[in-house]
Amino acid sequence: MTKGHPALLTDHYELTMVSAALKDGTADRQSVFEVFARRLPPGRRYGVVGGPGRLVDLIRSFRFDEEEIAHLLSRGVVDDQTAEWLAGYRFTGDIEGYAEGELFFPGSPILTVSGTFVECVLLETLILSVLNHDSAIAAAAARMVTAARGRGLIEMGSRRAHEEAAVAATRAAYLAGFSSTSNLAAGMRYGIPTAGTAAHAFTLLHDDEAAAFAAQVAALGKSTTLLVDTYDIAQGIRTAIKVAGTDLRAIRIDSGDLSVLAGHSRELLDSLGATETKIIVSGDLDEFSIAALAAEPVDIYGAGTSVVTGSGAPTAGLVYKLVEVDGRSVVKRSEHKATIGGRKTAVRRHKPTGTAIEEIVVSQGTPESRTGDRLLQRPYFVGGEAAVLPSLDESREHLRQGLISIPWEGLKLSAGDPAIPVTVVPAR
Amino acid sequence: MTKGHPALLTDHYELTMVSAALKDGTADRQSVFEVFARRLPPGRRYGVVGGPGRLVDLIRSFRFDEEEIAHLLSRGVVDDQTAEWLAGYRFTGDIEGYAEGELFFPGSPILTVSGTFVECVLLETLILSVLNHDSAIAAAAARMVTAARGRGLIEMGSRRAHEEAAVAATRAAYLAGFSSTSNLAAGMRYGIPTAGTAAHAFTLLHDDEAAAFAAQVAALGKSTTLLVDTYDIAQGIRTAIKVAGTDLRAIRIDSGDLSVLAGHSRELLDSLGATETKIIVSGDLDEFSIAALAAEPVDIYGAGTSVVTGSGAPTAGLVYKLVEVDGRSVVKRSEHKATIGGRKTAVRRHKPTGTAIEEIVVSQGTPESRTGDRLLQRPYFVGGEAAVLPSLDESREHLRQGLISIPWEGLKLSAGDPAIPVTVVPAR
Repeated sequence: MTKGHPALLTDHYELTMVSAALKDGTADRQSVFEVFARRLPPGRRYGVVGGPGRLVDLIRSFRFDEEEIAHLLSRGVVDDQTAEWLAGYRFTGDIEGYAEGELFFPGSPILTVSGTFVECVLLETLILSVLNHDSAIAAAAARMVTAARGRGLIEMGSRRAHEEAAVAATRAAYLAGFSSTSNLAAGMRYGIPTAGTAAHAFTLLHDDEAAAFAAQVAALGKSTTLLVDTYDIAQGIRTAIKVAGTDLRAIRIDSGDLSVLAGHSRELLDSLGATETKIIVSGDLDEFSIAALAAEPVDIYGAGTSVVTGSGAPTAGLVYKLVEVDGRSVVKRSEHKATIGGRKTAVRRHKPTGTAIEEIVVSQGTPESRTGDRLLQRPYFVGGEAAVLPSLDESREHLRQGLISIPWEGLKLSAGDPAIPVTVVPAR
Repeated sequence: MTKGHPALLTDHYELTMVSAALKDGTADRQSVFEVFARRLPPGRRYGVVGGPGRLVDLIRSFRFDEEEIAHLLSRGVVDDQTAEWLAGYRFTGDIEGYAEGELFFPGSPILTVSGTFVECVLLETLILSVLNHDSAIAAAAARMVTAARGRGLIEMGSRRAHEEAAVAATRAAYLAGFSSTSNLAAGMRYGIPTAGTAAHAFTLLHDDEAAAFAAQVAALGKSTTLLVDTYDIAQGIRTAIKVAGTDLRAIRIDSGDLSVLAGHSRELLDSLGATETKIIVSGDLDEFSIAALAAEPVDIYGAGTSVVTGSGAPTAGLVYKLVEVDGRSVVKRSEHKATIGGRKTAVRRHKPTGTAIEEIVVSQGTPESRTGDRLLQRPYFVGGEAAVLPSLDESREHLRQGLISIPWEGLKLSAGDPAIPVTVVPAR
């Protein structure tokens, strides 16, 4: 559990750089830092910006309290001059960037942070932690939403992730289009619909399956979901309908060969007259196994581990790099070939049909404007003041529209190139 | 940031089960839940128990406050009877389990939670979140410590993980034998040594590399580490020694072919008379790339992404299963072959030389005692009261000894069977 504010969610070297810069007079040099990805995770065709909505609140409360400063002094992390500066810290600069739910590609300037060197360098770790985590989950979840082809998706992976990361992961999965979550904290903090009925333990607790089902229906009504695979699935389904009647809302199957079991279960439910009873399947589902169930009579998927761990890509690979100092473009030598310094402006270019074709990123200038261009950056902080953000549901819709706009190859689950190219050009 | 206590870090279905069990009179059935892994992540030969030290504090503060209960009522998650029960909730049962830092294998009864059904079922998600995350990181980190062969390891992955997961990951990496971390919150919360000097941004901020190095040495003294790869590495090293003198503590290289660069850098440092200046390397290191640098003149490794993401296994795959109700062993049908119900007692059996040879797990009984046996379970809660835990440093030493005790094949980085077998037997 975090106590207080997030200022110590920071790497030691940021304070070291602050100390040294305060001493040698470079602290106030006007600096521009940029968050971008050099590449997408293997096999991915797009990234999804996740986290700005959480990040803005964290930056607003980014302060060092007395106890934290005393700790840093006692450990020799900072000297008195730096401690005094930290005590007065609040971010007074500007942050602009891609909207939450925006697609991104290698080279997209996702977030641009400008202000004095010291006030900006201090935010590096927090910014990257939030965006790397939430974007990784959102991208994996978006692929599952595509694979589900309009069927419902319940996020149920909290138990496979750090307890606080789980709440953020739920938020990112909902952003990507998941219908609901098992996580109650996400329900309370973010208003995400929560869902859940019973584990196998509830059946095992009872003397038999019928007693467990009867208890659940008595407490929750027939709109509940009965978990039918604790013992024999066919018998479990018969017992479920016998206990709850044919207007039982749903059954859940959490084990076995789901592609076979879904069909058999549908036939059995129909033969018992429960033609409206839905089938929910869960158990180590990822985007590929969801896609493989497309032809089966599944109504809702429950996905857990693969969502909260980013389905093979648990971090988005975003970096935070100094690109401009006092108006001068800067870049690390080893990146000269791949990277262009300077503050960037980004637009996404579309065909008249609305299909995205290219992202144009101009360093220290503005892209030539064309019909179908959409500016990708929006303000997050202006002079230290946080801008009003879209709601989570608005960001969710933004992502839904974004996925419609990319060329259809971009939605394939197989490995391939980024859905659209990013052209980074120096100022014209 | 988490506010208050962890009670909502819980899955919806746990409250549903509590509601239904309170209604049908099964709520108070004496239950035993067990945390175990069905298998290790692909390629792994052991697991490491991480997280009990964090978990005990979280369970102690596991309470529902008025605002949370009002939220659950308003969303229809619970009814009045359940809300009243939640308001009075505190865990009054027993928890015993493997020590933090203990090795585990498939079938090891890592944690055993006993009490009434409802008080135990409510802790499922929190227990699994903490143990799955921390154990995943600890296991990955332990392999890196083995690969480093006594050289120092700095954990610097916070930016690649959720901001709170990063703090827990640091704790797990230190448990596994890492020397220090970049994460300041981990320094303050857990007393872990922190380290860090400068990023490439600090060099880019300055007019040239010499100015940046001079500023850093002026602020931090010659015991600092200069990052020499912003421009040309050989020139960077010459500038570093020119500015700081031959008693500079260390240089860091964060890019390029580290196996070649380490040797060249050592030769150059020696030729400049800086024979005691250490070489720190970083940049996407994992256990395999660390092992590959064993013959090179590297003094300290910095590892980031691969540590905090569990190096390919971001979650430990632990499950929480009901194994006993009112003294009756229970087990889900689909697990009959692999799983034995009932409360387990576990010992690790050793040769007279101290080498572990087997783990014996007895259901509803006690293993026959032999010389060289070590009981693996220790109390965490007795009648709802938390036991005194070992310090993090004691747990770290416990893991170090555990890794010495397993057969040498168990420490190989390549894929293989679990280091020792676990034999689970019904009561004799």
